[in-house]
Amino acid sequence: MINQLITRIRQTGAPIVVGLDPMMKFIPQQIQKDAYAQYGETLEGAAEALWQYNKGIVDAIYDLIPAVKPQIAMYEQFGVPGMIAFKKTVDYCREKGLVVIGDVKRGDIGSTSEAYAVGHLGKVQVGEKFCYGFDEDFITVNPYLGSDGVKPFIRVCQEEKKGIFVLVKTSNPSSGELQDRLVDGKPVYELVGEQVAAWGQECMGDGYSYVGAVVGATYPEQGRILRKVMPKAFILVPGYGAQGGRGADLVHFFNEDGLGAIINSSRGIIAAYQQDKYARYGAANYADASRAAVLDMREDIAGALERV
Amino acid sequence: MINQLITRIRQTGAPIVVGLDPMMKFIPQQIQKDAYAQYGETLEGAAEALWQYNKGIVDAIYDLIPAVKPQIAMYEQFGVPGMIAFKKTVDYCREKGLVVIGDVKRGDIGSTSEAYAVGHLGKVQVGEKFCYGFDEDFITVNPYLGSDGVKPFIRVCQEEKKGIFVLVKTSNPSSGELQDRLVDGKPVYELVGEQVAAWGQECMGDGYSYVGAVVGATYPEQGRILRKVMPKAFILVPGYGAQGGRGADLVHFFNEDGLGAIINSSRGIIAAYQQDKYARYGAANYADASRAAVLDMREDIAGALERV
Repeated sequence: MINQLITRIRQTGAPIVVGLDPMMKFIPQQIQKDAYAQYGETLEGAAEALWQYNKGIVDAIYDLIPAVKPQIAMYEQFGVPGMIAFKKTVDYCREKGLVVIGDVKRGDIGSTSEAYAVGHLGKVQVGEKFCYGFDEDFITVNPYLGSDGVKPFIRVCQEEKKGIFVLVKTSNPSSGELQDRLVDGKPVYELVGEQVAAWGQECMGDGYSYVGAVVGATYPEQGRILRKVMPKAFILVPGYGAQGGRGADLVHFFNEDGLGAIINSSRGIIAAYQQDKYARYGAANYADASRAAVLDMREDIAGALERV
Repeated sequence: MINQLITRIRQTGAPIVVGLDPMMKFIPQQIQKDAYAQYGETLEGAAEALWQYNKGIVDAIYDLIPAVKPQIAMYEQFGVPGMIAFKKTVDYCREKGLVVIGDVKRGDIGSTSEAYAVGHLGKVQVGEKFCYGFDEDFITVNPYLGSDGVKPFIRVCQEEKKGIFVLVKTSNPSSGELQDRLVDGKPVYELVGEQVAAWGQECMGDGYSYVGAVVGATYPEQGRILRKVMPKAFILVPGYGAQGGRGADLVHFFNEDGLGAIINSSRGIIAAYQQDKYARYGAANYADASRAAVLDMREDIAGALERV
């Protein structure tokens, strides 16, 4: 799947992943009204609104980008109906040929991580049969529990030729409280980065490993260091746009081959119509605004990489 | 909810939480057969088996214990039907008067943690209405992203009078890879423990805080230290039984008031009938075996606390 991701990045010229993180305040009123008319102001109604909103965006941008990253929390908050909308989104995006990165940030003790791994990336045995649960292509994984909490994911990646992105240095303001603390003179994120590099050796694609890392766009200096610590790991970079990262900050997340990083934007794309810059599209054409925002983001990143 | 948990611990004389972590290999063949006869060897069939198995156990033990802890991964692995079984289990246990600790180990950047918090502990706005998603009483939270990843959970706890248990020192063998590393001479788990104590001051129940901690039974020495670092935090202690912890190891997780800790056992209770000690019950009476195992566990812990 890492090979497929790289192929699609090359085809589209866009090392971009769009975060499908639908918040109610992003969803045009008309979509909400239609959904509530059908299902009432219920979890089912909310889930329908999420799904219709996503579908509009995906239809408008799927040819421009290699991948999407649905943030499961935005669905899980609507309970079981929300999870149904998550699953519909995953399946629809895969049908459209997109690589799907489930942003689930799971991680637990060994036997439990195994259940998450089969549920999101693999297949689970039921009687004599094997069934797929959520069936994403990649997921994000939390490393706080150590390697026996991560290795079950790697085993399933090997079986299924799928991948994970391990949280190394997250984009949020307080990520440093734990991740920047020094252990034997080295920050925690660097120790985790070293683990990512070691785990990745166990499952290599053609040029990059199935085991990638999450490093926030908001921390470009750490990105530069981690790029060297984990040369074969693809870096998933959240925090572009709304969280403050810009194209010029991102160049050091890439390797000299122009690969090695994929930049996420969520609200900057999916709620583009709410920005002054794209307001002319209006709520009814929110998906066209998203398409315009993807094109601008592609240009911003390509420009920054050319100037290196 | 922390007050209610303590009341129920006093009523039952059992500082015990039963982990409802159904693995297929624990579920008696007959229950599986009946479920597959109805739904086929599908995710729906598996989910039905989980639910019937849980219901049998809950009916047999609900009067003996204060709380249950369903591990969501064991449901999530069966996709959407598994999540439906999780929700049915949560609702049924709450109807039976049990405190429900959702073992979900969520944690993300601020806006995303907020979605997890409302989805699992609070209510989410849909149009003019407010709806509950999964609606547990407590959940477990991963601290790797720092305080802006944890505080949204605390805000919802304050609103809803619910609680969280933050992962501090987990029970698994490799938990030390990150959690035991020394920062300024102090292990990471102690730093996180200090944060738990600080966060907890913002939401105190009568004697204990809404913000508790997870510390594995398999690390009694760390439990002793953390008990002092976080005197007002309830400690959720996994790892009793199958993972190797014994009653005598647990005494230092408690405060002098005999409270402050709740010990989890999962397979030791729910799959008791598969142990030699309870084999006489047979698979058909698996729930009675679970009841016997709860009574034995209560005695083991009470005995250990008396000997202090």
